[in-house]
Amino acid sequence: MIRSTMQDFSLTVGAILRHGSRVFGRSECVTWTGAGARRATYAEVAENAERLAAALTRLGVRTGEAVATFCWNHQEHLEAYFAVPGMGAVLHTLNIRLFPDQLAHIIGHAEDRIVIVDDNLVPLLARVAGRVPSVETYVVVGDGDASALAEASGGRARVLRYRELLAAEEPGFAWPEVDEHAPASMCYTSGTTGDPKGVVYSHRSTFLHAMAVQSASLVGVTEADRVLTIVPMFHVNAWGLPYGALLSGATLHMPGPFMQPEHLTRFIAAERSTVASAVPTIWNGILEYGAEHEIDLSSLRTATSGGAAAPRAMLERFEERYGLRIIQGWGMTETSPLGGMAFPPPGVKPGTPEDVDWRMRSGRVAAGVEMRVVDDRGEELPWDGASVGEIEVRGPWITGSYHRDPAPEKFHDGWLRTGDIGTIDERGFFQITDRAKDVIKSGGEWISSVELENHLMAHPDVLEAAVIGVPDPRWTERPLACVVRRRGATVSAAELAAFLDGKVARWQVPENWTFLDEIPKTTVGKFDKKPLRARFREAAFEVERVERAARG
Amino acid sequence: MIRSTMQDFSLTVGAILRHGSRVFGRSECVTWTGAGARRATYAEVAENAERLAAALTRLGVRTGEAVATFCWNHQEHLEAYFAVPGMGAVLHTLNIRLFPDQLAHIIGHAEDRIVIVDDNLVPLLARVAGRVPSVETYVVVGDGDASALAEASGGRARVLRYRELLAAEEPGFAWPEVDEHAPASMCYTSGTTGDPKGVVYSHRSTFLHAMAVQSASLVGVTEADRVLTIVPMFHVNAWGLPYGALLSGATLHMPGPFMQPEHLTRFIAAERSTVASAVPTIWNGILEYGAEHEIDLSSLRTATSGGAAAPRAMLERFEERYGLRIIQGWGMTETSPLGGMAFPPPGVKPGTPEDVDWRMRSGRVAAGVEMRVVDDRGEELPWDGASVGEIEVRGPWITGSYHRDPAPEKFHDGWLRTGDIGTIDERGFFQITDRAKDVIKSGGEWISSVELENHLMAHPDVLEAAVIGVPDPRWTERPLACVVRRRGATVSAAELAAFLDGKVARWQVPENWTFLDEIPKTTVGKFDKKPLRARFREAAFEVERVERAARG
Repeated sequence: MIRSTMQDFSLTVGAILRHGSRVFGRSECVTWTGAGARRATYAEVAENAERLAAALTRLGVRTGEAVATFCWNHQEHLEAYFAVPGMGAVLHTLNIRLFPDQLAHIIGHAEDRIVIVDDNLVPLLARVAGRVPSVETYVVVGDGDASALAEASGGRARVLRYRELLAAEEPGFAWPEVDEHAPASMCYTSGTTGDPKGVVYSHRSTFLHAMAVQSASLVGVTEADRVLTIVPMFHVNAWGLPYGALLSGATLHMPGPFMQPEHLTRFIAAERSTVASAVPTIWNGILEYGAEHEIDLSSLRTATSGGAAAPRAMLERFEERYGLRIIQGWGMTETSPLGGMAFPPPGVKPGTPEDVDWRMRSGRVAAGVEMRVVDDRGEELPWDGASVGEIEVRGPWITGSYHRDPAPEKFHDGWLRTGDIGTIDERGFFQITDRAKDVIKSGGEWISSVELENHLMAHPDVLEAAVIGVPDPRWTERPLACVVRRRGATVSAAELAAFLDGKVARWQVPENWTFLDEIPKTTVGKFDKKPLRARFREAAFEVERVERAARG
Repeated sequence: MIRSTMQDFSLTVGAILRHGSRVFGRSECVTWTGAGARRATYAEVAENAERLAAALTRLGVRTGEAVATFCWNHQEHLEAYFAVPGMGAVLHTLNIRLFPDQLAHIIGHAEDRIVIVDDNLVPLLARVAGRVPSVETYVVVGDGDASALAEASGGRARVLRYRELLAAEEPGFAWPEVDEHAPASMCYTSGTTGDPKGVVYSHRSTFLHAMAVQSASLVGVTEADRVLTIVPMFHVNAWGLPYGALLSGATLHMPGPFMQPEHLTRFIAAERSTVASAVPTIWNGILEYGAEHEIDLSSLRTATSGGAAAPRAMLERFEERYGLRIIQGWGMTETSPLGGMAFPPPGVKPGTPEDVDWRMRSGRVAAGVEMRVVDDRGEELPWDGASVGEIEVRGPWITGSYHRDPAPEKFHDGWLRTGDIGTIDERGFFQITDRAKDVIKSGGEWISSVELENHLMAHPDVLEAAVIGVPDPRWTERPLACVVRRRGATVSAAELAAFLDGKVARWQVPENWTFLDEIPKTTVGKFDKKPLRARFREAAFEVERVERAARG
């Protein structure tokens, strides 16, 4: 019996930091201040991480316990990304956009004793400080007023300053040896159904995901890149980009609280970002802003969009106006998040309609991830680009349970049930058409709400469109299109129904229409259809009918 | 205590095959036949691997035992790369260039019971078939005469045909679940000192190394690539390229036995290889051939050179004549082999002397590998580009022992002692100057034989040069330069000594010179200095002296 002679070497966040700070000690974390940028090299970030780990040790942080952050994307947050897992504790990134109830629930569920919080987010956090008894210490980043925290907690929690804590320590923290299966960070799902669930990433999954981030088949981040992480660091570790950047030597661009298109585009132009990653809502905002202002995106070699499907028109306009090829990626909190990216296959010419067709795919299965599509009975369907079912995934950076919640209904024979409905083709390109709960079941057939939304949003007068299923006595469900017109536009329901004709099967064209001022969104910017369904039930908005026969 | 919720997913060769054959089922393994190419898609390779695994199971192969190959680079060898580890056995690639004694020793040491052998290599293997009692079965690839094997083994071993074995099986082999720490393949060192030692790669190390192969910071292989593996598949798994190709979807170009420059360049031109990997001897052969024949290397986007330091002139000539930027890599059998590659940092303009300076580095520490340089007492030296010591490495694809031989003298606190002498700079670029045993110790100072060799090989009249240390009563050792002139050249020792003046410190210029027809080489094409030292001791060649004083 032959045995492997390979070294037993743990894949850890500490190993990423060692590589990033030694081999790429000159690469930088650049944080936007609104007026300009403040900079720290990775060597400096590593020193600060050492001081932070020393300070947290002094504060009594124990191996395997959570240390929370309630922060924008910036240098100090990056330092926590390495200090907390590096010392053997668990970085718990809190979503600043959660409702107070959810936030209090999550802090309690993770038993956070320390929360690192930005001074400008103190008012937001203070709203829950009275009902999170686990929290003993707030560490405030910045010098702004933090008295609201002490008050709200009734003086029970101490309030310390990040800057002072670090100043009191020396660099040279003795990082412990950490097993690669130990927890490194955690993130709660922002799902729109049920209580948020905690996904706990391991050191191993974090390291492997960082290797994937530098894969040439994916974003292929290298030392030559300057990566603007618009996606928040409290959202699935900013899609793993901070860890990928330290491993590959890419400079990180951190927007801080300056998430408005004006600031983002000034940051890109000033610091010559080469890669940027954001949800479609942000990209759309930049398009809108760019239509009325001079912006310079010429430094971007690529950009990624994820979290929700991007409208085709958005991809086309970025390419036409700025020569920027946005690539869609697919993932979830449960998948670290990289599941696949929609890079067209070799031979497809950039800028052609075919190229956009490929980029409208949800992604292509990433190396390291395994995917399948199963029908209602859990039987695997062929990769033929046509068989529709639920997408399931497995792999070394895919969750197999939730924190203190095994949730067996979310898994199937060791695979994660994504709740996404779609197809996979012969080459591993997959197309998510709907969330399982968003599919409209009409007369025994499925109508894809996302497909209708994409077609509608390609109309020049439409800013946003969300389609939901509404009860129908004859067909079980029929689609209702909720449309937000662009400023000044007057397009009618009949005109939009006519616009859809020929783009989708005739029976799929909605006969129910309503016009809104905006589509409700989740905390991470996805369309939130729950309130739309509720408003329909309560008859809280007017539904205009376009007779199907009338479209002859 | 928080625990990771990540899935327990094993990183295996089987997972690479699943990804390669499903997502990239149309990518190809293209084998050169001398007259053209034969092709198989990865879907077909996977089917054949299934048949091969079924056949080997029928032949009684057990989990954890070695199955040997004695083959060139071709499709069937690739099938064995996946079938043998995939079924839980250990692929043992035999170096066809070993001396019979070494080969017999290794086959016995690994207890090989089955050897897959090319028909055109039967005569070579038959030389040892009489003294490898462990071997019960030879599986011959190709239809050529194989009677010599049966004869040499005295009829004890059976001789079967690869083609027939596979034809007798069905695809659809039920691959077992394999733990990632299980052995996948093994390769014996071809070191010039002592008995060969067996390095056993795990599934995990193979998978992680394949991920590194697709890192954009390294070769960055993708589906758009066609990778010519000139480096033999019996040499550290062809530098891991076959596994990297299946994971990334790159097509593989396999030269078979056609390793001559004429064939390699025809293959590149016909199939438009985009990447090629070879030792400097092969690259030099292509340069020589190209000087007298029309060759087309325009399809190559990059090429790698490893196994030995490349002469600067070689890098320059490839760039001048073919616009081809060869990148050097560093590694060993013990390191899977990727330890680092010498890609210049961002901002360096290709084609400039500075660019070549960077590419003359031995490499830059690859993500996933940790490196340090230590002095004689084992103390770590600074990364300053000046402090010279022995290079040590550790990481998930670095060996920590040898097969049935812990060899503690090769390790130091869990780090592999590479036996290479060099420096590391502030950015992790390292420069190997010598093998520990090749350093010339002259008057208390070290002289780098490699540096002298590189300077000499940059002289237009010099084809090859090897420098060894010879005893000297006053200085302990002094360098002896062994030079092979280019055809028709008549350059003298005094002229070469003068050529070195100003390039190295004056006291480093050799005063001992000899001219040879060729430099002896190891089985993998490296200069073999042992026979040179022996010939010097036996006065088996004439040494010409160029007085140091005479060079003013």
